[in-house]
Amino acid sequence: MIKHPAITPFPPPPLGEVEGASYKRRLMAVRTRLVALQFRLGRADFPVLIVFGGVDGGGKHEAVNRLHEWLDPRNIDSLAYVDPTSAEAERPRLWRYWRDLPARGRIGLVLSGWYSQPLLDFVYQRSDAAQFEHQLQQVCDFERTLVNDGALILKFWLHLSAEQQRKRLRSLAADPLTRWQIRPRDWRNLQLYQRFVYASRQLIEGSNRAPAQWQVFDGSDPRASQLRVAEALADALENAIEGERPAPKVRFTPTRRRRLETVDLGVRLGKTPYRERLKAAQAELLHLQQLALQNRRATVLVLEGWDAAGKGGVIRRLVQPLDARLYKVNRIAAPNDEEHGRHYLWRFWRQLPRAGHLCVFDRSWYGRVLVERVEGLAHPPQWQRAYREINEFERVLTDAGVHLLKFWLHISDEEQLARFEARRADPLKRWKLTDEDWRNREQRAAYNQAVEDMLARCSHREAPWIIVPADDKRFARICVIETVCRHLKRT
Amino acid sequence: MIKHPAITPFPPPPLGEVEGASYKRRLMAVRTRLVALQFRLGRADFPVLIVFGGVDGGGKHEAVNRLHEWLDPRNIDSLAYVDPTSAEAERPRLWRYWRDLPARGRIGLVLSGWYSQPLLDFVYQRSDAAQFEHQLQQVCDFERTLVNDGALILKFWLHLSAEQQRKRLRSLAADPLTRWQIRPRDWRNLQLYQRFVYASRQLIEGSNRAPAQWQVFDGSDPRASQLRVAEALADALENAIEGERPAPKVRFTPTRRRRLETVDLGVRLGKTPYRERLKAAQAELLHLQQLALQNRRATVLVLEGWDAAGKGGVIRRLVQPLDARLYKVNRIAAPNDEEHGRHYLWRFWRQLPRAGHLCVFDRSWYGRVLVERVEGLAHPPQWQRAYREINEFERVLTDAGVHLLKFWLHISDEEQLARFEARRADPLKRWKLTDEDWRNREQRAAYNQAVEDMLARCSHREAPWIIVPADDKRFARICVIETVCRHLKRT
Repeated sequence: MIKHPAITPFPPPPLGEVEGASYKRRLMAVRTRLVALQFRLGRADFPVLIVFGGVDGGGKHEAVNRLHEWLDPRNIDSLAYVDPTSAEAERPRLWRYWRDLPARGRIGLVLSGWYSQPLLDFVYQRSDAAQFEHQLQQVCDFERTLVNDGALILKFWLHLSAEQQRKRLRSLAADPLTRWQIRPRDWRNLQLYQRFVYASRQLIEGSNRAPAQWQVFDGSDPRASQLRVAEALADALENAIEGERPAPKVRFTPTRRRRLETVDLGVRLGKTPYRERLKAAQAELLHLQQLALQNRRATVLVLEGWDAAGKGGVIRRLVQPLDARLYKVNRIAAPNDEEHGRHYLWRFWRQLPRAGHLCVFDRSWYGRVLVERVEGLAHPPQWQRAYREINEFERVLTDAGVHLLKFWLHISDEEQLARFEARRADPLKRWKLTDEDWRNREQRAAYNQAVEDMLARCSHREAPWIIVPADDKRFARICVIETVCRHLKRT
Repeated sequence: MIKHPAITPFPPPPLGEVEGASYKRRLMAVRTRLVALQFRLGRADFPVLIVFGGVDGGGKHEAVNRLHEWLDPRNIDSLAYVDPTSAEAERPRLWRYWRDLPARGRIGLVLSGWYSQPLLDFVYQRSDAAQFEHQLQQVCDFERTLVNDGALILKFWLHLSAEQQRKRLRSLAADPLTRWQIRPRDWRNLQLYQRFVYASRQLIEGSNRAPAQWQVFDGSDPRASQLRVAEALADALENAIEGERPAPKVRFTPTRRRRLETVDLGVRLGKTPYRERLKAAQAELLHLQQLALQNRRATVLVLEGWDAAGKGGVIRRLVQPLDARLYKVNRIAAPNDEEHGRHYLWRFWRQLPRAGHLCVFDRSWYGRVLVERVEGLAHPPQWQRAYREINEFERVLTDAGVHLLKFWLHISDEEQLARFEARRADPLKRWKLTDEDWRNREQRAAYNQAVEDMLARCSHREAPWIIVPADDKRFARICVIETVCRHLKRT
């Protein structure tokens, strides 16, 4: 079992003087432990994130420097953030933190991370209490998602009283080596000390969830707080490496809805109306993408479907008229080792489009609840909790203004067989057909249930699933492109 | 042997009408070949880059669309570039092309790539002939570096006469699906047609090197030019997959210089002067980094040296006073599989700092000519041509205004042994000592030669190697930090 550290009251009590000999002894002990633990971590299958928060001058930088000294720096990723670059500003707020996540077995030291902007925005009244709470909620979802996947997240808050902070800022400003740490903002912040303390308490309470609790230390004696941070880290590493961490339980009942059965697969579209509607829809999509570019709204399209349902053909017609520099088609295959070393959503976060750009996913994060579920590549707790993770992920996207649409290309069992046979006979298409495709066919019932569960759990007004009858390729293509147009126009 | 395609004269002759039945037959033949070849490519150990150039309306977009249709799009990376993002603008021009290089076994389709900006700059007289030539030279170096590493680079130039271009632009502008392709710029460009043709001829002649020659086609009949592109691609893939491609020969004579022997390892620095100078140097470095940030000049520091020479200690003191958000320490270990799949310089290109930022490499691209040479991890032709590749890489950096300094931390054999023994005895440092360190010690003579060759071949005024006597750790730390300061101040 994991021992959860007790929550220190806020503001925290002084840590008390650590007397010289006792300090040396404790320091030696904890450093020896850390050295041993970092090796075991290197072989462990989870990443560690150490997040520092607290008042300016509370000693965050110094604590990070110490950890670099006490641990093997080759095992540490330093994640320190400034104002967003344009690439960062054009994506959801959490994008850069996902992008930089350390791989399993590594430690990320986070400075000015995901708590920084929400706090400053609230203190400076650029956001109200509801927005602040919403941002904290997103952060909590983010942390829970990582912790459920095995991550160890430690959060340290280093506090100072107003008087201590004033003294600390003065002494930092007097030393040419640390003067830069003090910006005009910091003196302003000091005047807002009470508001800061209020916001900090809100923040700590609002994000003090079981999987990643705050440990609040008095930062007035750096030696003492650094020692406590190191000891807390050693304890937590030990627990995480040695303790059993049972996968969080998820309650899961397969849906009984049968939406696929009600799909009318008999719809057909003639050649001439197809050509006309295709041309009109492509022209409209082109126009709408120009608008989206002006409005700086990104579009994400997900295409899933049975093997040979015609995803490739749909995508080709969809992007044909568009400027190749403004869209990207991501074709999702098995993850590489960089991707394997992280949460399964990581690689999809990495590929999110810039503002105004379009990104088509040919297969997607739904692989977790489709092929990985059916083929047993993910354990039940993994794919069962994925629905919630996916919903939260998509919510972050749509909250950030991303147009998100998901298409399931549906074909009948017989039509699939006919297409497989046709592919086998065509020298230009034979390569598309693999043994895996034939194996998947035998799993149709299991896939059916997985698709129904996905449709039932992950359809939302802002990010709907659209089932496309695809026995007729022409109809399917028109259906997808026209639906995308309607959606882009409406919002 | 690779057959080099004959160079088509510029402007190219018309391709001639492809009569219907013959077109169908040739198309079927080439598509069948491409389908078979793409599978063999997937298992091959080289990447393919297909670069499209030529006048607006020459059919580049259409050719790219066709290749997406005729090949398995899952195997294709679409590399199409717009105006640089801030992240791109803050790095050398070639950065984004390096960043996006396809992995071995994959095909990259390049639109508006590395030839686009040099050409437009020259036509619009933002650059003069000398700058244009210099940029072409950098591009040629870039392509040669990739081809030597096995890449297959195909370059297609689709040409139109002024009259044909005017007609094509008009017809594109008349169709709502293609109108967007025409920008006001394109009509201006048409007025500059003669200048374009002149610049294009310069470009083609200036970059028509043996490893990656241009194939110039008349683009007035898209069907014909697409067919020719596909046939040329199939031929080249066949040659590359089947033909023997002997590694390019490099002439290499080990240097007889013995710079390390002349280093005075007896220098020492007392504790008090060390503390004073360290504090002064750190303060100065801090100040200079603020200046570099204002001037938007990046700094790259390379630290190499014998095992236990004290690189970690130097780096810690170097970055200690700096703002963690403005520097990054890259510790170079064995490459992961994404890195293995590309040219060895790829991962270093990826890690180049933003403008004004500092990046410390704890070990670096010199691994190629040190550990990889000595341990036989690179073949002789690979590490022997690496000197030139490294010099060109560093030249690109310094040309782009990057401060670049390289330090070799030198310790005697005896001092190294003493430090190994001390590490073995210290429970806090024992982990730093590995079996590999002991093995490396036995290779001291081979490493000595490798270091001397590296120093002799890769020292330049703009990117010097500095040998640091490091038997005394205090002296070494001061020496590095003060040298960095002197260099930043001078330039």
